[in-house]
Amino acid sequence: MSVAVVLVAAGSGERLGHGVPKALVDLGGRTILDRAITAFLGQSAVTELVVVAPPAAADSIASTLRSGCPLPAVVVPGGLTRSDSVRRGLAALSDAVEFVLIHDAARPLVPASVVAEVIATLRSGSDAVIPVLPVVDTVKRVAGQQVTETVDRTELRRVQTPQGFRVDVLRAAYAAAPELVATDDAGVAEAHGVQVCTVAGDEAAFKITTAYDLRLAELLVSAG
Amino acid sequence: MSVAVVLVAAGSGERLGHGVPKALVDLGGRTILDRAITAFLGQSAVTELVVVAPPAAADSIASTLRSGCPLPAVVVPGGLTRSDSVRRGLAALSDAVEFVLIHDAARPLVPASVVAEVIATLRSGSDAVIPVLPVVDTVKRVAGQQVTETVDRTELRRVQTPQGFRVDVLRAAYAAAPELVATDDAGVAEAHGVQVCTVAGDEAAFKITTAYDLRLAELLVSAG
Repeated sequence: MSVAVVLVAAGSGERLGHGVPKALVDLGGRTILDRAITAFLGQSAVTELVVVAPPAAADSIASTLRSGCPLPAVVVPGGLTRSDSVRRGLAALSDAVEFVLIHDAARPLVPASVVAEVIATLRSGSDAVIPVLPVVDTVKRVAGQQVTETVDRTELRRVQTPQGFRVDVLRAAYAAAPELVATDDAGVAEAHGVQVCTVAGDEAAFKITTAYDLRLAELLVSAG
Repeated sequence: MSVAVVLVAAGSGERLGHGVPKALVDLGGRTILDRAITAFLGQSAVTELVVVAPPAAADSIASTLRSGCPLPAVVVPGGLTRSDSVRRGLAALSDAVEFVLIHDAARPLVPASVVAEVIATLRSGSDAVIPVLPVVDTVKRVAGQQVTETVDRTELRRVQTPQGFRVDVLRAAYAAAPELVATDDAGVAEAHGVQVCTVAGDEAAFKITTAYDLRLAELLVSAG
């Protein structure tokens, strides 16, 4: 079994206000990207890494990876949209790869156990696997500022990454929908008729978007 | 303007595994309940406080409040369900009260600014006001472990507390639906045809349910 990891790290990080791409923001002495890579290094099935980087930072990230990453790693510049970036990542995989995990670098604290569970579920025959959590808060539908409905949340799940796929399946899904704007890769697969199954995610795999999120991540990292 | 606060603190806290009711769990040197009360003490419109307590802890909570709470406060024992507890809290309000804020004690870190915004929106004429946040993660609908749909989340909001109401409106809504099981008080009001409006919530107002949530709260409190 040969699994590649595509780390989507091309985000600008504008909402963090640090003036550098999000992947390069410091998180307790290491960059967000560096921490995101760590969750994958202990997985024996993972054989290569592709980092989709902000174009302006691609060279410096590549030089950092050359010196410190124990896996074969390549860096490709990101596209204009997340989907463009994933396409570029998929195009950079070696031919030997059977499965791919697409992971948001902005979820640097994903536990290795979640990664392992996604890989195990691919190994057992699934074409597409995503980690999810229940929706704990009450959810309302609104129109403007007015509530129109309380939504039944029992069948709703919050989706995290890494999302795992058979490489040929995900490539075919992206090829079939060159203009599709999906919020996640599983959405592209679903639109292509692929059956997506779920495994348990973890609160620690939350996405860093705002300054509040970064502060939480810093507190979690410093608490060890 | 006279605003009462009903703090729903009757939860068992079983998922926290501390062996005491959740409201009495320590959070950086003060109980969760004590911290939840604090957010309301600085609001000049708030004139009284009702704590709906776990029956076995009602006496000790009452004695603590008598010695330390600057507001008129009463403690009533909770019911079998959250709705029962809220009914008991509403029954304990003084006649002078015009508005009520129903707050989960399990959201002890709600910023005073959110409370103030809920009160201000009631003051401007709304019958029912809830703090909400956007849904940031991709959301899927599932059947068992299989994804059936990616949900459009643009009109979805995560609901927090305190939820604010005209007292007569909320009492009428609860009276009209003696058997309704709603996940929140706004849901009871909606079922009675009340227009509910939203204001901006805050990530810090998250609900403490699991050990992970409590750890986050401890980290946030200790970081100041």
